[in-house]
Amino acid sequence: MIDPRLSINQATIKYADLKTALSVTAQAGVEAIGLWREPVQEVGLATAASMLTDSGLRFTTHCRSGFFTMPESPQRRASIADNLVAIEEAATLAAAGADGSTAVLVLVAGGLPDGSRDIVGARERVRDAIGELAPHASAAGVTLAIEPLHPMFASDRCVISTLGQALDIASDFDPATVGAAVDTFHIFWDPDVLDSIARAGSEGRIATYQVCDWNTPLPADVLLSRHYPGDGVIDFESLTRAVIATGYHRDIEVEIFNKEIWHTDPLIAVQRTAAAFAAAVSPHLTPISTEQSHA
Amino acid sequence: MIDPRLSINQATIKYADLKTALSVTAQAGVEAIGLWREPVQEVGLATAASMLTDSGLRFTTHCRSGFFTMPESPQRRASIADNLVAIEEAATLAAAGADGSTAVLVLVAGGLPDGSRDIVGARERVRDAIGELAPHASAAGVTLAIEPLHPMFASDRCVISTLGQALDIASDFDPATVGAAVDTFHIFWDPDVLDSIARAGSEGRIATYQVCDWNTPLPADVLLSRHYPGDGVIDFESLTRAVIATGYHRDIEVEIFNKEIWHTDPLIAVQRTAAAFAAAVSPHLTPISTEQSHA
Repeated sequence: MIDPRLSINQATIKYADLKTALSVTAQAGVEAIGLWREPVQEVGLATAASMLTDSGLRFTTHCRSGFFTMPESPQRRASIADNLVAIEEAATLAAAGADGSTAVLVLVAGGLPDGSRDIVGARERVRDAIGELAPHASAAGVTLAIEPLHPMFASDRCVISTLGQALDIASDFDPATVGAAVDTFHIFWDPDVLDSIARAGSEGRIATYQVCDWNTPLPADVLLSRHYPGDGVIDFESLTRAVIATGYHRDIEVEIFNKEIWHTDPLIAVQRTAAAFAAAVSPHLTPISTEQSHA
Repeated sequence: MIDPRLSINQATIKYADLKTALSVTAQAGVEAIGLWREPVQEVGLATAASMLTDSGLRFTTHCRSGFFTMPESPQRRASIADNLVAIEEAATLAAAGADGSTAVLVLVAGGLPDGSRDIVGARERVRDAIGELAPHASAAGVTLAIEPLHPMFASDRCVISTLGQALDIASDFDPATVGAAVDTFHIFWDPDVLDSIARAGSEGRIATYQVCDWNTPLPADVLLSRHYPGDGVIDFESLTRAVIATGYHRDIEVEIFNKEIWHTDPLIAVQRTAAAFAAAVSPHLTPISTEQSHA
């Protein structure tokens, strides 16, 4: 059985073009998909939107923009401009997705600028950039999802390392416009993770819930260390129940960067993802009944 | 100039035996050393203590024990017993070191037990183990230093990932008996790091301050990704000033796991460490004068 709340993030089948990604996802019986900018831009936004509509899939997130930790400069202006394009893409794709689609744009903050050791300053510039983007996101009906990345990426990819930190930045803005991405891989280690999820829910900030697993040893490229849910050490029960307890009722993405999975036939990778999700995540999507909770 | 507060952690020159480690450290003009259990046990504790006395060096930490996240079992009993041995070693070596030596035993909690996904339970068992060890440490005059390790080690090496979390556990105990290791590599990314250092100081919990640098890309074995201070992205100024502002007045260790440095001649590695420390850390060891602070 395919869980009706499962969404395949396109990164899980990175080597599939947009057409293939849409068709294998639908063929596997999955109802929703999260897209990446590059394969969308490869065919053009209008074509991508119409392909998405034809697929009948819901659209869950647009991945990803951000990367705005640099000081004021033409490079920073280019980043802001590119983020504005990403906001328009997210709005267009959400309108083209099946009913229940969400216009969520995932933001990865970026690492320390070259030669800089000022992580505090870099974090302030993330807040500033989101302040610039928020009115545009609001006008477009897009929710910006600040994604905290695992601290092993703090210096070179994302200076936002915890869900609490993402929420602190989001708190300056309307929850409909700025929320957070809750990704099990990045935050499972956090001693405050359950409290932070509860806080994110009570503040209306869970823009997307994404699941994949963590295991060791880490591969040489730690970026590719994500696994099918169940193939690692993450406790999906406590994390998923915490998310569901907040009232989160939308789709749940599986986003896996893993060389071996990327070299799997994409239909098979989607089917395996669906099976892993059904085993590791689905059992925790319904509120615990009184009987079970006393078991 | 060799900073009089510099201590060489023996792991920085891992391939040197105890005799060599002591002699090259003293020969370089460094006044203090942190030792590891294996090279001490290789010569025997009594011999190691007398070699340490002969070296004239201060002793700063004993590294390391811990690894007690497993449930009650003969394996857990063996771990507790081994930790008791480590406490005695730390006390003996501190007594053998030059004046100003500290009896500090560094504790690395351990990762998830095989097959477990219960990181919350593993953390509770760390607290329990320290509760068992604390009376023995107190009797021996040894301070147990809970070392938070970078979250990339949370599953396989240390379930204690932040300084705040280490302090929460330590708070059950007398600060003379249980403190925390403040290691820049492990905590620089933490958005709460400066507050946590201030808290650690005000609670009297900074058992040792250790410095080394973080850089990317990470090597295939992320355990070996530590660098000379200044060779990475860590802001030693803000971290060191925060530690010094708490009144921390003891030695500061440089502990580097790095294959290239391990393959350097140990005297040269110690000299390079001393030069790196002088450039990246020493300038931040004195309180800022009024004039400087207004500059």
